[in-house]
Amino acid sequence: MIKVILVHPKYGGNVGSVARVMKNFGFKELRIVGDRKIINDEAKMMAVHAKDILEKAKFYETFDSAIEDLDFIIATSGARGGDRNLKRVPITPRELAEKIKEVRGNIGLVFGREDDGLYNEELDKCDLLVSIPTSEEYPIMNLSHAVAVILYELYISKVGNKFLDINIREASKEDKELLIKKFNEFIDKKDIPEHKKELCKIIFKRLVNRAFITGKEAWTLMSAFK
Amino acid sequence: MIKVILVHPKYGGNVGSVARVMKNFGFKELRIVGDRKIINDEAKMMAVHAKDILEKAKFYETFDSAIEDLDFIIATSGARGGDRNLKRVPITPRELAEKIKEVRGNIGLVFGREDDGLYNEELDKCDLLVSIPTSEEYPIMNLSHAVAVILYELYISKVGNKFLDINIREASKEDKELLIKKFNEFIDKKDIPEHKKELCKIIFKRLVNRAFITGKEAWTLMSAFK
Repeated sequence: MIKVILVHPKYGGNVGSVARVMKNFGFKELRIVGDRKIINDEAKMMAVHAKDILEKAKFYETFDSAIEDLDFIIATSGARGGDRNLKRVPITPRELAEKIKEVRGNIGLVFGREDDGLYNEELDKCDLLVSIPTSEEYPIMNLSHAVAVILYELYISKVGNKFLDINIREASKEDKELLIKKFNEFIDKKDIPEHKKELCKIIFKRLVNRAFITGKEAWTLMSAFK
Repeated sequence: MIKVILVHPKYGGNVGSVARVMKNFGFKELRIVGDRKIINDEAKMMAVHAKDILEKAKFYETFDSAIEDLDFIIATSGARGGDRNLKRVPITPRELAEKIKEVRGNIGLVFGREDDGLYNEELDKCDLLVSIPTSEEYPIMNLSHAVAVILYELYISKVGNKFLDINIREASKEDKELLIKKFNEFIDKKDIPEHKKELCKIIFKRLVNRAFITGKEAWTLMSAFK
């Protein structure tokens, strides 16, 4: 199940618009980091026939509490967000739609503040970064437009393609962490410069998080680093 | 050149939102069938940095006058518009993006009223009908969301799906093959059962191919397997 998570949205109108487009594309669960007051008259007006999504929205005081029960977290970023956080290469919504077919469990799709997006410490807690290609002249999209484009891609890829094998289950967070830990221990024993070790660790972690590795694959691969 | 044509929009906020998303995706020409009064304070507020598009928008009294100089006219329709006008089978935005590559001349992309869409006599004057696939439960999208999705598809097909920044280019086939080769050599030297070696090789290869690894990442990671 994919949950749409809005982090500290500022305008009720945007939240209502997000609810509407969620319903247009068959998404039901909305989480909001912030105050209930955001569901104002404008939010309800913009939601039109998706007021039920606003009514059932869950509220959280912190980003951490909004994601703690989720298995896989996707951050969205405007303006080719990779620039800001060089640790992460963004993928496109279409690439996301392809990748997400292989993921099972609870998925969070996180959208940041209208003005400031997501902060680095929030991005660091996400497994994947998706960014919508836009014109360089004006790359900052309206929040609900960004949601519309990404949910559209996910919807299209779901209705366009039958779901894959149920056997393909993504590795749990624990399995992935264990694999990364084994790799790090292996790297620490190598005779290469310290800064290169750190880079290798970061890259391997990214690789594992980007590739939707399955549980079985993670366990098999661990044997390589023992 | 593609011109976005709004037929009798009712809310200035929607018109402003349309201008913004046009600029996000590099579209410049907006035509409006209706009164200039639609460019109100809310329109300007929602346009944010796309007020120039509102200022340069052209106004027309009738649908016919808004399309008379155009070579190819595309109608958009919510709610799988084909139902209403059985003469025409709608295509999807993605099919439109493919098709439009073959079209030369001035193209009009027409969006109807927020409530009533386009009337049959207007649809009849268009060459093609495009409709966004949506959930049957709530198929009616916000006007600016529909514009966002269609312009996004047109933009993506023009610039391609991948980000173009050279620093986040995917590793070449050769780089990936070299990384996989290094990993395989590394595995061959390990003291683990033969069948496990083969499995590890297959999994690592899959991981690299799935993860969109960059050239720089591939080269850094090779040092781990030397």
